[in-house]
Amino acid sequence: MKFAILGSGRGSNAEAILRAWRAGGLGPAAPVALFSDNADAPILRLGESFGVPSALIDPGPFRTKLDPAAEERFATAVRSAGADWVVLAGFMRVLKRGFLEAFPDRIINLHPSLLPAFKGLHAIRQAWDAGVRVTGCTVHLVSREVDGGAILDQAAVRVEDNDSLESLEVKVHAAEHALLPSVIGRLAEGRLRPLERRTAR
Amino acid sequence: MKFAILGSGRGSNAEAILRAWRAGGLGPAAPVALFSDNADAPILRLGESFGVPSALIDPGPFRTKLDPAAEERFATAVRSAGADWVVLAGFMRVLKRGFLEAFPDRIINLHPSLLPAFKGLHAIRQAWDAGVRVTGCTVHLVSREVDGGAILDQAAVRVEDNDSLESLEVKVHAAEHALLPSVIGRLAEGRLRPLERRTAR
Repeated sequence: MKFAILGSGRGSNAEAILRAWRAGGLGPAAPVALFSDNADAPILRLGESFGVPSALIDPGPFRTKLDPAAEERFATAVRSAGADWVVLAGFMRVLKRGFLEAFPDRIINLHPSLLPAFKGLHAIRQAWDAGVRVTGCTVHLVSREVDGGAILDQAAVRVEDNDSLESLEVKVHAAEHALLPSVIGRLAEGRLRPLERRTAR
Repeated sequence: MKFAILGSGRGSNAEAILRAWRAGGLGPAAPVALFSDNADAPILRLGESFGVPSALIDPGPFRTKLDPAAEERFATAVRSAGADWVVLAGFMRVLKRGFLEAFPDRIINLHPSLLPAFKGLHAIRQAWDAGVRVTGCTVHLVSREVDGGAILDQAAVRVEDNDSLESLEVKVHAAEHALLPSVIGRLAEGRLRPLERRTAR
């Protein structure tokens, strides 16, 4: 299972994946490329540290999605790197049909809530505002419905009385950094698939 | 904290509360009455076993709610028993303003999901159908929005590969039987309140 990592920002989840890989924690899975839509993204500098090729890909004219030509540029870059899976690690653009159909059921994403609760942006704040005592994070296959693809795994995080939104964010991100590499490793070993006959809403 | 338990069915959560009480696990909280809208409800037989008065209250003409006169009968029964809190344990009727205003922020309910996910009936099946890997149960204050009151506490339950809907139901109910008495005990001791400045959706 060779995969490319796509990210737009700090790259903390990409770094968690790369660290797990270097420590032998991804089983037969291996990251073969890092791509970003953002020239300033620290995620691009991770490639050098871990010996994985990284590149900026021109995202085209839009801010929150890729136009078809940009989707094709990303898809071509992923294929050229020899990857057949794509891991989204803080990639801040909605992927449309062109990219999804290039890697059907081979694109995974991380969302900082227990989906289907708190879809969309600012999920940790949404959960905080709702006063929940349990939230968490979800790794799921990407489908055309935003945050709606089949769930691969989830991790729960408790909200304690003395938590602030900031401390909750730290805890959810820590759960993400453990869950995402674990899911990649189990997928590669054939030990994880979406629960049968069920689809996330 | 004296409370009445209202239930319509088997009474497994009522029994969990009564067992915790008998074992000294509710702190200063004590159940003072069991009321049901259903003459055949096994929950009514729990009263004798645990030395707590129980009674059938005429629910009036509707199936899924109480009419104002029936709400008044229930409220009068609760007050007459000396209770100032109400615990809903499988009470299958929506409570309306008349009853809610009689015990403002003093009615607690248990819901078999991690609210705000999977409100309404058949919540465990809803979670199962959605393919989640983490679900659970919620104890919340009752507001006029069904399953929408402030969350008091939640417990997470993992869905394992070898779970069936039936085994998941067993696990969620076990979590309920632990969570509800724990919440009652902590409320009575002043150690639990809804997270501030946040409301459940």
